[in-house]
Formats: sequence, C-alpha cells, structure tokens
Amino acid sequence: MTSALLTQVKFDDKGLVAAIVQDAATREVLMFAWMNAEALQLTLTERRAWYWSRSRKELWLKGKSSGHFQTVHDVRLDCDGDAILILVDQTGGACHTGYRSCFFRTADEARWREDGEKVFEADEVYRR
Amino acid sequence: MTSALLTQVKFDDKGLVAAIVQDAATREVLMFAWMNAEALQLTLTERRAWYWSRSRKELWLKGKSSGHFQTVHDVRLDCDGDAILILVDQTGGACHTGYRSCFFRTADEARWREDGEKVFEADEVYRR
Repeated sequence: MTSALLTQVKFDDKGLVAAIVQDAATREVLMFAWMNAEALQLTLTERRAWYWSRSRKELWLKGKSSGHFQTVHDVRLDCDGDAILILVDQTGGACHTGYRSCFFRTADEARWREDGEKVFEADEVYRR
Repeated sequence: MTSALLTQVKFDDKGLVAAIVQDAATREVLMFAWMNAEALQLTLTERRAWYWSRSRKELWLKGKSSGHFQTVHDVRLDCDGDAILILVDQTGGACHTGYRSCFFRTADEARWREDGEKVFEADEVYRR
C-alpha cells in the first residue's frame, strides 16, 4: 500500500530523503533528520517516526532511547519530491539536548543566542 | 559581524547547509532548500532569503523571477549545526507551482493527495 507512495519520493545518491518534523498542534519546527525508504515505510505504516542515522548508519526509532516518541499525524511531500514534512505529537522534547526543538538558537547579530524551551535534563533521560 | 555566526554552521562536503522555511505568522512550513555560506551571509545581512540552486549551480534570490520575495524575521540553527530554520514573511506563494507551500501533498493511503492552497497561476508568474 505504501510502496506506491515511495516511488514518487526522490531519494538522493545515498538513498536518503530530507525529513522536516513539525509539532502538529503548535506548528513549531522540532527537528531535521534523514529517512531512507525503509524508515519512511515504517513511519507510514506504524505512525511512529523512524529515521536513518547517517553517523551510526542504522535505522532509528525516535524515542527508543529517551521515550520521546513521535506519533505521526500527517506525512507530506514537497513539489520536487526530495523533502518530507511530518506533523507529529511529540512526547517530551525532540532535541537530545533537552530542548523542545533542535532549533533552540537564534541569530543575534554576532552569535547564536539560545532562546528555546528546555523541557528535560539530557543526563537524566539518556542514562549512560 | 555575521562571519562569527557562519563559523558555527556545519556546511556539508558540498559546502551546503539545509534550510527549512517557515511562515513567521501562520507557522506553515513553506519550502526546503539549500544555502551555501554566501547565501546565508546575504540572508542574514539583507533580511531577504537567498539560496544555492544545486541544479543551476548558482546563488538564487527567492522572488527574483516571481516577485515572491521572502522577508526574513528570524534565522535559527539546530543543535548539530547542519540545518537552518528561517521564519519569513512570504509574498505570494513559496512554491513555483502556485501553491502557498511546496508541501501541498499529503500521504493518503496509496497516493500523495494534493490538499494545499493554490495562490497563483505559475504560467502567469513565471513568464516564458
């Protein structure tokens, strides 16, 4: 069922498509990640967000370590098929640093000033 | 002044950083594009969005052809420095197809169903 959807996605030369993640309720942009075909298929079928980790070279279920899962409300495709937008219900925070959004820094003349909302302590959530 | 900002951005092996564009008022995600250092610098200083066109291999002032300029309200950086989020006031539509947003298709079981808002006729705006 989802395979027809996948054929219209233009994965890049590494087999990846850009994924923008937005809070379905507040519309805050939460994070940016990458999906391969399998991650997109899992996201569409399970309605939980899966990504491809370029650093770890593995499929990654968002929330598996932290409990901060993303329940997927909508999956959207852009005009040229090389970017996905997913609208989610985000448990906890999207950013591994404890901020609600990964975009917690704003350009403030000469520096990136932190102005995001911190919602958890990373050391407590990602136990080592 | 902006060069200190640029040093914290992690441009990829092609010298590019991912750029997500969001409507500053409605928070709708409008488009996804790429910036090189020069495009980001111009965006920060001129407060109009500039991008790098990977297909045309040239700097691109959004709106130069269409008149659909983007006035920049906020430029944000994500946790690992490889994605930019810009909040803009979008004249007309962001998408070259005439839709307000490039993400005008939603995953509807077996197909990508168009449900975006069309705000202009592409043939009239991009005269050939």
